Amino acid sequence: MAKEITPRSEDYSQWYLDIVRKANLADNSPVRGCMVIKPNGFGIWEKMRDALDIMFKDTGHVNAYFPLFIPKSFLSKEAAHVEGFAKECAVVTHYRLKNDPNGGGVIVDPDAKLEEELVVRPTSETIIWNTYRDWIQSYRDLPLLINQWANVVRWEMRTRPFLRTAEFLWQEGHTAHASAEEAMQETRLILDVYARFAEEWMAMPVIKGIKTVNERFAGAEETFCIEALMQDGKALQAGTSHFLGQNFAKAFDVLFLNKDNQQEYVWATSWGVSTRLVGGLIMTHSDDDGLVIPPKLAPVQVVIVPIPKPSPELAEAAAKIAAALKEKGIRVKIDNDDQNRPGFKFAEYEMIGIPVRLGLGQRDLAANQVEVARRDTKEKANVPLDTIADHVARLLDEIQQNLFDRAKTYRDEHITKADTWAQFEDILENKGGFVCAHWDGTTETELEIKEKSKATIRCIPLDWPDEPGQCVFTGKPSERRVLFAKAY
Amino acid sequence: MAKEITPRSEDYSQWYLDIVRKANLADNSPVRGCMVIKPNGFGIWEKMRDALDIMFKDTGHVNAYFPLFIPKSFLSKEAAHVEGFAKECAVVTHYRLKNDPNGGGVIVDPDAKLEEELVVRPTSETIIWNTYRDWIQSYRDLPLLINQWANVVRWEMRTRPFLRTAEFLWQEGHTAHASAEEAMQETRLILDVYARFAEEWMAMPVIKGIKTVNERFAGAEETFCIEALMQDGKALQAGTSHFLGQNFAKAFDVLFLNKDNQQEYVWATSWGVSTRLVGGLIMTHSDDDGLVIPPKLAPVQVVIVPIPKPSPELAEAAAKIAAALKEKGIRVKIDNDDQNRPGFKFAEYEMIGIPVRLGLGQRDLAANQVEVARRDTKEKANVPLDTIADHVARLLDEIQQNLFDRAKTYRDEHITKADTWAQFEDILENKGGFVCAHWDGTTETELEIKEKSKATIRCIPLDWPDEPGQCVFTGKPSERRVLFAKAY
Repeated sequence: MAKEITPRSEDYSQWYLDIVRKANLADNSPVRGCMVIKPNGFGIWEKMRDALDIMFKDTGHVNAYFPLFIPKSFLSKEAAHVEGFAKECAVVTHYRLKNDPNGGGVIVDPDAKLEEELVVRPTSETIIWNTYRDWIQSYRDLPLLINQWANVVRWEMRTRPFLRTAEFLWQEGHTAHASAEEAMQETRLILDVYARFAEEWMAMPVIKGIKTVNERFAGAEETFCIEALMQDGKALQAGTSHFLGQNFAKAFDVLFLNKDNQQEYVWATSWGVSTRLVGGLIMTHSDDDGLVIPPKLAPVQVVIVPIPKPSPELAEAAAKIAAALKEKGIRVKIDNDDQNRPGFKFAEYEMIGIPVRLGLGQRDLAANQVEVARRDTKEKANVPLDTIADHVARLLDEIQQNLFDRAKTYRDEHITKADTWAQFEDILENKGGFVCAHWDGTTETELEIKEKSKATIRCIPLDWPDEPGQCVFTGKPSERRVLFAKAY
Repeated sequence: MAKEITPRSEDYSQWYLDIVRKANLADNSPVRGCMVIKPNGFGIWEKMRDALDIMFKDTGHVNAYFPLFIPKSFLSKEAAHVEGFAKECAVVTHYRLKNDPNGGGVIVDPDAKLEEELVVRPTSETIIWNTYRDWIQSYRDLPLLINQWANVVRWEMRTRPFLRTAEFLWQEGHTAHASAEEAMQETRLILDVYARFAEEWMAMPVIKGIKTVNERFAGAEETFCIEALMQDGKALQAGTSHFLGQNFAKAFDVLFLNKDNQQEYVWATSWGVSTRLVGGLIMTHSDDDGLVIPPKLAPVQVVIVPIPKPSPELAEAAAKIAAALKEKGIRVKIDNDDQNRPGFKFAEYEMIGIPVRLGLGQRDLAANQVEVARRDTKEKANVPLDTIADHVARLLDEIQQNLFDRAKTYRDEHITKADTWAQFEDILENKGGFVCAHWDGTTETELEIKEKSKATIRCIPLDWPDEPGQCVFTGKPSERRVLFAKAY
């Protein structure tokens, strides 16, 4: 089975599609650009969602739900926003079908045309800020810390499962504050939550930074992001947190009475991560044998395989081990299939990325031991049955840490300084990864570099020191280096 | 505050809207028929979702996600299905907006017309069975037990928050089986899950039954349902589980190789409950002072109110009580507001339905006690601080049980036998509730009764004995009584 995966060295892009297909993560659908998220893929997203949801709630946020549809005119109210989103919207124009009077199925009923067209939300700032107008009167109503888990639609021309799809699942936080400082604090707080989630749960190291003006969210005053590096040397924007200033409050007339009894526009943030993270997880850890999932996000963390096949005695021993693991909160599955051989099953479980596999045969049982195989390194060891639960619990932590360390080593080795344009091009061409270079700070130069090299400025890293220098492209003065990369 | 709620006796319908508004459950939106689910309302739905999700998983189901959009032609493939759903669909015809060349915002770009229109899913049988065709080859691929949590859209003309909205949130299960028997077992299994959820979590007694042919889901061979009774004597369909036979397999060509090596069409079920349940919960338990939530579904189960207002000493005692409650898994909130008076706060917490309120004053503290008020009966008692956690844990169970008992008593008192048409009309007119009467089994009679009385057949109850008699309307022979009611 694993043989059917294209090796990464041969064609990384095809390897990715093979993993998505063979690990049963997603499927194409008859609707252009929309995917079906299969149970294996959705199980990972559920774990991500649950972990993030707890982090949001622990920082004072609550969930709500706003309409899927946005009146067309709402999009126009914030000038930058409409520029960014109007071009890729699904538009609802009618509300009824009817039988084709000429036979041949159903047709759109021309009598059921909407007075104002509705756009399927590409993001919800407009409808939410239109609602906040009714919810906010005074500083006592602030802050408003709301998150929504939802589907959104952006009519992308080139799609790729998880990474870029017309419909995707995400969370979008929309908060309202009484001051710029507080809104900025919120923006940074969420950036930290995202970074912590990426590193501690996904085992995916990220760089926190600021987007350039050109790469900002349409309607934001400042966009913060976390950027990760995939195994092929391309960057992935993994989450963004926007300081929106008073732009949406002004567009939707959301004023509050401040402590000095003055009317003032409300300050806003918005922030989101999406099913794109599943793509990032795949491309951070997986190998030529299949998917690798960090244990904390694995729907099944341990599989117990009776060898060569299930028997009453092995079933009893497996159930005992499973019970001991469950008691430690470990998610475990017992393989009960009696059709396929162990070798086939091992390959299958490697393909779908179960972090730990326990092989349990008659001889193991006699020796009071079990064979433990870890997915990340493929190492095997015999472990006494008496201590198996402790051993596996420790091993899961070790795998989680090893995946992070491995990804971080790769990432750190792929941040390369370039001081000349020749170096810049050479790194992008031959080594890949982030190029750390000076830039003169203009959108003009940024776009010319993109045109010439296909690399974009991923971010201006947050916690890096100032370092005066000269733009790698124009030679003009620069205050600090920024990170360039080709990106997904 | 509570004074602003219209009493139930005066106008039940207005009372419901008042509760939704004053308990901050939902808000209108600028999109016709779509509501905003506010944090208080969404918190209840989250608890419902979490409880149901565990029940589905415990019975072997997994979650997945299918596209929001359905190609128009898919709807036509199952004849009954298209009749039932085509009339109320949101239709996407274009995929881009553009700036109006005459100024004035954005317009639909006529160049971006879809070749085939897309319907926003009113339910997902068609797109899912189109997908299952690729997933199912042999009996080894069966059963397929998949659930989806999603938003759906049905263009309803008359809407009402939670009970009937154009967009709503729900879960839809779609399972595939190798035999009619197994599919029927699944249909019944889920009906039992729904009934158990309604009674054990929502404290809402339900009657399990079968829908008449006329009330069946469009495309089903048999529709099972749970029916509840609201306080105004109107019934609410709270969940449905459909045996779909081979209808969708035939429409979408989904065949499997059975154990006898024969090609056979796959057997199907589908089943769903929605945010409508929040409306059912409101109308089962709430009173003229506000919302009443069964403790198991209350986002906050206990609120601790320092009296007359927070002080360091009271805060310390409150924190200690909260810690003891949390240790028992009780969801607790401490009121820290120092602006409003206790009376105002009490009314507010009654309005939003927190099951238990603890009032903690300086004198209570000195007496080593706390005042415990329960939302359902409004009873108050002083309880020693040392045993408060045990007391509250017991009390929450007691409230849960009391709400169920109260609702069941009301429901049982409102199932009335009618043997003549005069009785039938009298019961509907004056007493309300379910009318238990004989019916001749024809759709014609069913529709005439509906026309004359506005009552529909809610269900043919499952576990009731056969009892020959004569149709209350036509006098023709009948094998058993069925349940009529006016319904939401």
